[in-house]
Order: sequence, then C-alpha cells, then structure tokens
Amino acid sequence: MQRLMESEADVALQYGPTEGIYELRCLIAERMSREGILTKPEHVIITNGSQQALDLLFKILINPGEPVVYELPAYIGGINAAVNYEAKPVGVRQDEQGLDVGALEQYLAKQREQGAPLPKVLYIVPNFHNPTGVTLSLSRRERLVALARDYDFTIIEDNPYGDLRLEGTSLPHLKTFDTDGRVFYLGSFSKICIPGVRLGWLVADPVIIQKVCIAKQGSDLCTNSLGQKLVCEFAKSGLLDQHIGTLKSIYKRKRDLALAALTEYLPKEVRWTQPQGGFFIWITLPAHLDAKQLLPGLVAEEKTAYVPGGAFFVDGSGKNTIRLAFSQVSEDDMAEGIKRLGRYLDRMLHSVRPTRAEAFRSA
Amino acid sequence: MQRLMESEADVALQYGPTEGIYELRCLIAERMSREGILTKPEHVIITNGSQQALDLLFKILINPGEPVVYELPAYIGGINAAVNYEAKPVGVRQDEQGLDVGALEQYLAKQREQGAPLPKVLYIVPNFHNPTGVTLSLSRRERLVALARDYDFTIIEDNPYGDLRLEGTSLPHLKTFDTDGRVFYLGSFSKICIPGVRLGWLVADPVIIQKVCIAKQGSDLCTNSLGQKLVCEFAKSGLLDQHIGTLKSIYKRKRDLALAALTEYLPKEVRWTQPQGGFFIWITLPAHLDAKQLLPGLVAEEKTAYVPGGAFFVDGSGKNTIRLAFSQVSEDDMAEGIKRLGRYLDRMLHSVRPTRAEAFRSA
Repeated sequence: MQRLMESEADVALQYGPTEGIYELRCLIAERMSREGILTKPEHVIITNGSQQALDLLFKILINPGEPVVYELPAYIGGINAAVNYEAKPVGVRQDEQGLDVGALEQYLAKQREQGAPLPKVLYIVPNFHNPTGVTLSLSRRERLVALARDYDFTIIEDNPYGDLRLEGTSLPHLKTFDTDGRVFYLGSFSKICIPGVRLGWLVADPVIIQKVCIAKQGSDLCTNSLGQKLVCEFAKSGLLDQHIGTLKSIYKRKRDLALAALTEYLPKEVRWTQPQGGFFIWITLPAHLDAKQLLPGLVAEEKTAYVPGGAFFVDGSGKNTIRLAFSQVSEDDMAEGIKRLGRYLDRMLHSVRPTRAEAFRSA
Repeated sequence: MQRLMESEADVALQYGPTEGIYELRCLIAERMSREGILTKPEHVIITNGSQQALDLLFKILINPGEPVVYELPAYIGGINAAVNYEAKPVGVRQDEQGLDVGALEQYLAKQREQGAPLPKVLYIVPNFHNPTGVTLSLSRRERLVALARDYDFTIIEDNPYGDLRLEGTSLPHLKTFDTDGRVFYLGSFSKICIPGVRLGWLVADPVIIQKVCIAKQGSDLCTNSLGQKLVCEFAKSGLLDQHIGTLKSIYKRKRDLALAALTEYLPKEVRWTQPQGGFFIWITLPAHLDAKQLLPGLVAEEKTAYVPGGAFFVDGSGKNTIRLAFSQVSEDDMAEGIKRLGRYLDRMLHSVRPTRAEAFRSA
C-alpha cells in the first residue's frame, strides 16, 4: 500500500474506466490463460465483486418469467441476482459429483418435448460449491457444456473458490470446453486476496463485455481504483501467489480438523460432504429433522449456531440440511462447536424421532 | 492510509455490512444534520458512488413505461439509470434559476386534466447543475417540494457539488422542505474527497433504506470497506473539511479564469452561464449552429475539444449547446483552449451563418 501511494496515488485515487483498470485486466487475462482459458484484456471486465457481474449479466440476459437453472442447493446470491429481474428459478439436484447432469438432460428433454420454455441461463459453482463443498466431475463438465450447445442456453460459471484446492488435481474450467462463447466465467479476489476491496471479474466474448460495460455505466460508472491498483501491486510483487499458498495451508488444517471432529462427535445417522477445497462442509440430517426449527434450541442449550440449508434450495426442499464454513472460525472454537452440535443432535435424534403414529399423522 | 493500515486493517480489508460501515453512516448523518436534514445512521446507506444509489432507487421504484421527469438538460448518468429500467423520460426546461417549476406545474396540471399518467419520480441536481452550472432558486425549491406533495411524486435530489460553493450563501436542500419522506437525497465523496474509492450515499426514510439495502444485497453485497474506512480516517482527522477548503480555492481561481477567458475570446453572439460553484459552465451558441457537427473541425483545426450538449436533453433538443468543465484542466490549457474555441467559433459564425434562403428551406 505504501509503495502504491508513493508511486501511483494519482491513478489509485482517481476515477477509472468502466471496464476496469487495464493493468488489472491484463493481469487477469494472464492468470486465466495459464488456467487454460485463452483470454485477452478485452475479454475481461472488472466488477464490484463477482456479485455485480451476476447482477449485470442477469440485467442484460433475463426477461421477466424466463427460467434460470440452479443446483439444488445453490448459492443464495446467485439466486437473488436473477430473482431481482423476475427470472423463474428451476432446480436440478446435485450429488457428491456436483450437478446431476443426467437429471438436467431429462428436464431439458421433457421441456422440449412438451414445447415448454427452455432455460436461457444455468448458474453453477463447479469447484468447492457454496453451500455443499462438492466439485463437478470432469465427465459432467464436458457433458454440461455440450448440453448448453444442444439446448442453446448460457452457463454462468462462478468460481470464487477454485484457487483454494486443498488436495487432488484441478479440473479444467467449464469455459475451456466452450466453443461458441456461451460460458461466462466469474472470478473473484475476495477469497484469495482482499474481500474489503470488492473486486471480481467476468471473462466472456468482447460483445458481451461491451454490453455488461454499458449496463455497468448506468449502475455505478466504475469499480474503485484504489482496490484495483492495490491488487495489481500485490500480484506484481509476487505476494498474491504466496498468499494463496498461506491460505491453503491454513484452510487445509481447518478442514482436516473439522472433518475429524465431525467423525468424532456427530451421530451415525448424520452424513456430510468431503470437500477438496473452498470453505464449506454440507451436513444432511435424517429426513424428519428440520435444521431451522432445531437452531434456536442449539443456540439456547449449547450457545452454538449454524446456517440452516433450506434457504439454498429454490424448490423449498432441503429442510434437513446445514452449511458449516470452516474458513473463519478459530480451530479451538470449531472443534468445540462441532462437539456441541453433535451432543445436541444426539439428544434431538432421541427426543424428536417421530413415533409411528406421529409419522402417520404428519404424512 | 498508514494510520488506518496500522490500526484497523482487519476492518478495512474485510467484507462490510450491505448498508455501509456504521462509523461512516454516523459521520454522514452528522454532516447532513449540520446542513439542516435531521439524519440518523438508519436514514443512510452507503453506495458504490451515488450512481449506484440512483440505479437501486430506479430498480425499486420504476415499472416499464412509467414517466420520470428530467431537467432540459440533465445529467446523463441520471437519465441512463432510469432508462435501464425502461422508464419514459419527460423533459421540463431549465433557465438561469434552475428547473422552470412553473413549466413543470403546467405539465402536471395538463396530465391530470387529461387523465394521462403522472410522473412517479423527478430527478434534479439543484446545486451547480451538471451540465449547466445553474442553481435552483430558494422560492422554486419550496414550490417544487409542494408540487411533489400535490401530485404525489418522489424527488431524487442529487447533490454531488453542493459543498463546492465558490461564492454566495448555500441554499437549503430540497429535503429540508420534505414533510412526508418523498425527497431522496444523494451525496458523494467523489467531488470533495477521493473519486477512486467510489463512495456515495442516500438519505431517506428507513423503510426506503431497507428496500435499497435488499436490492444492493443482490447487486453487489456491499461497498468496498477500504475506501469507507479511509474516508472515516480522513474526516476524523479534520482533513476532509480542510481539503474542501483547498479545492474551493483551486476551483474558484479556475472558474474566474474560465469566465474571464470566455468574456475575452468568445464571439458576442455566444452566451454562457455564471456558476456559483461546482465544475461546469454551459455555452449556448446561436440556434443555427450544431455543436456536435462543429466538434471535428475544432479538433482538426485547433486541436481542442468540448462536450456537445445535445446528449443531455431527453427530448433531442439542445444541439447548439456545449458543456465546459473547469475542474480538471490546467489553468494554462484552459485559457489557451477557450482562446482557440473563440477563434474557431468566430470563423464558424461567418462561414456557417445561413443565408435567408437557407434559413427558409430548413424551417
């Protein structure tokens, strides 16, 4: 920051171009190209967090009532961005391999057969999914992009956690299978660098970038230059890659600790995901438990809380699910919190389990 | 910046609340209250420049086809923000006293009489207007807010230049006449502090702030914390008010120089405004000259340029107008530029002046 303020304060404190500071667009183009997406600066627009790229994409793509496909469950910010433009969210289930592309194909085929509206956009977080932590398998990636071509929809590939792989080999981005510009790639500096500067980016064909740029002009003119120049300085000096390395070792320790604590403390009826990266572990309770209803009891009895998973489902399902984030909480608090959660769930699985008569009445 | 990084980097580099960092909302509430608008933090939301406040307000207020009133001419960003949501812009003329509120009243009365749609929103820059530099008179301010009550429309009072009064006494904000929460006040740090941090704010009733906050959640989650904390630090240390003083003395010198050069060099057929603050002087050429058509000649012959005024008119008029900004250009360049503009216009007023026959044909 000091180096920046001494050498380029005039740029860092001034308005910048709507599409973003050229130096940062070049830097992103280089990083994306290294990851297999051949990118030039004109394929990149910098946004106020990748959430803004989502907002602007839906602003230019969606007319009221048009269907947008989401995973069950899906990132809430991705859902809200489209719902603001009156899109109609459609859910397709996910499993341990990510989006169930077979189920998607069945849905698409049925819509086509019935002459019903086909989706215009599919939104997906392929790596270390928010909220579930799962990663879309290689074969499904290829098949998903092929389906987008066959059924003529656009894919928004949202990848804020991709750089935070804690084990295994990186899989190619969906955009690397894109032959006709229908995959829009979203990246973010929030999880790998500085959330407080609000910097994300979109990679797409220049014609899309230009449309998004016009929409951004009316939305907020430009993204803050101070943050853009700070990230440039951080990356140029080699600190960004070094910092990502540090983050990965911190998060790996936390994830391992969380998974070990879950194994030690959670009742055997409860299942959870094994994320290879990112921030999240997804817990599935037995079907008769409602995570939202259970939460106040956990807070009162154990002074511990979680995020109930139901809000992540566009179809209203998922009441028996919970999102845990292992990213921010301290190691001590995490082990203790999971211990308390396990103790509480143990009690609930005894006290709440329905009798045959209750199950019959509620059915 | 150094003080901030040493003491509160944890807040400055982290995500912040969607409505903005509380410390900055308090600081703004205090400043607004000093200016006669009784404001609490819950009346304030921080946005990514005041352009974003405009975008979010139109997002929540406007349905396709609804009329929005603009001055003739009006700030282009204010027009685009509503047009993005398919509003129908309606123009009401402006004179040296700002918006012609009498003409507005006539338009409103006629709409009501005919049972035609009344506007939902009026957008106005009351102080040192962009692009014309004029200021809305006191009596018109009071009458405009009374009209908004009578005809039940909302006023967006956009005031980025208000702190940059270079002479005379400040007039009360439109919002000080507001008795029922129908004036939404927009402020900005871009012109008085640091444009590169993209910070604006909206003052409105909490129920509106909450709606804008929900829209912002889907648009970009939050505004950059780094800039917010930097502005807090800047203001707390007394530098903000000191800086505004410095800016005013710089801009006053430039404005005086620009007005003197216009008097010295521009042909007598050309008129211009006498701004009491802000950045802009507005030039009106004789009606038969087209500023957009004249521009390439000025660039080629005199290597000088201006912003043609036509784009600021929602009704397609104003072809004979020009916006000059005296804020950024150096004093030497400004005097020289105006000299060249005068020389060029002098030539054009001889070569382009229509013969009687031409004037007859074009009529």
